[in-house]
Amino acid sequence: MNPSDRLDATFTALADPTRRAILARLALGETSVMELAKPFSMSQPAISKHLKVLERAGLISTAQDAQRRPRRIEARPLEEASDWLEEYRKFWEASYQRLDVLLDELKSQQPKKRVRTKR
Amino acid sequence: MNPSDRLDATFTALADPTRRAILARLALGETSVMELAKPFSMSQPAISKHLKVLERAGLISTAQDAQRRPRRIEARPLEEASDWLEEYRKFWEASYQRLDVLLDELKSQQPKKRVRTKR
Repeated sequence: MNPSDRLDATFTALADPTRRAILARLALGETSVMELAKPFSMSQPAISKHLKVLERAGLISTAQDAQRRPRRIEARPLEEASDWLEEYRKFWEASYQRLDVLLDELKSQQPKKRVRTKR
Repeated sequence: MNPSDRLDATFTALADPTRRAILARLALGETSVMELAKPFSMSQPAISKHLKVLERAGLISTAQDAQRRPRRIEARPLEEASDWLEEYRKFWEASYQRLDVLLDELKSQQPKKRVRTKR
């Protein structure tokens, strides 16, 4: 896969709450498919389908234990996704600066009203 | 939208090379739909469909210019996605540490061979 295809696969894999929950569970340690399925009201085939999407993105692998075949997290693709997002940091930081300017303006226009900021 | 739905929408929006390219273009400044469509061999309706996915995720908005209706980037959802990924940083950093250990082992086992590391 080229870098763009890898980002497609990673972001697709992350665009689902069950798959994000599976990753959160695997962050605690290697887990068999049966154990992974437990907290979800989902059949094992449904979980296996989600695991395939995660596997395709390289986000999980199968540990060497012939019987249990536990899955484990592989976080490198998350790093690539994080690096991609990092390029846009200046934009979300700028949006907070714009909000600060706006709040300062509101404060100077209405000196008697309290402006509560939440951030 | 709750935070989980927002992450779904953001990651879905980012899981496509055209939509990522649109964001990269908008990072350079506000752009009309017609201008946005130019670099892509894609019809304006096809581009509009992508813009709707980005809009749904809150990643773009329409600037106040009745005629051109230029789109602009809204990066806050990218911050939420970045924060989510940040939780997994220790895992990709650990994977580099494991690689370093492995390379050290290889080096000590084969003192005469050169092991080239690439990172």
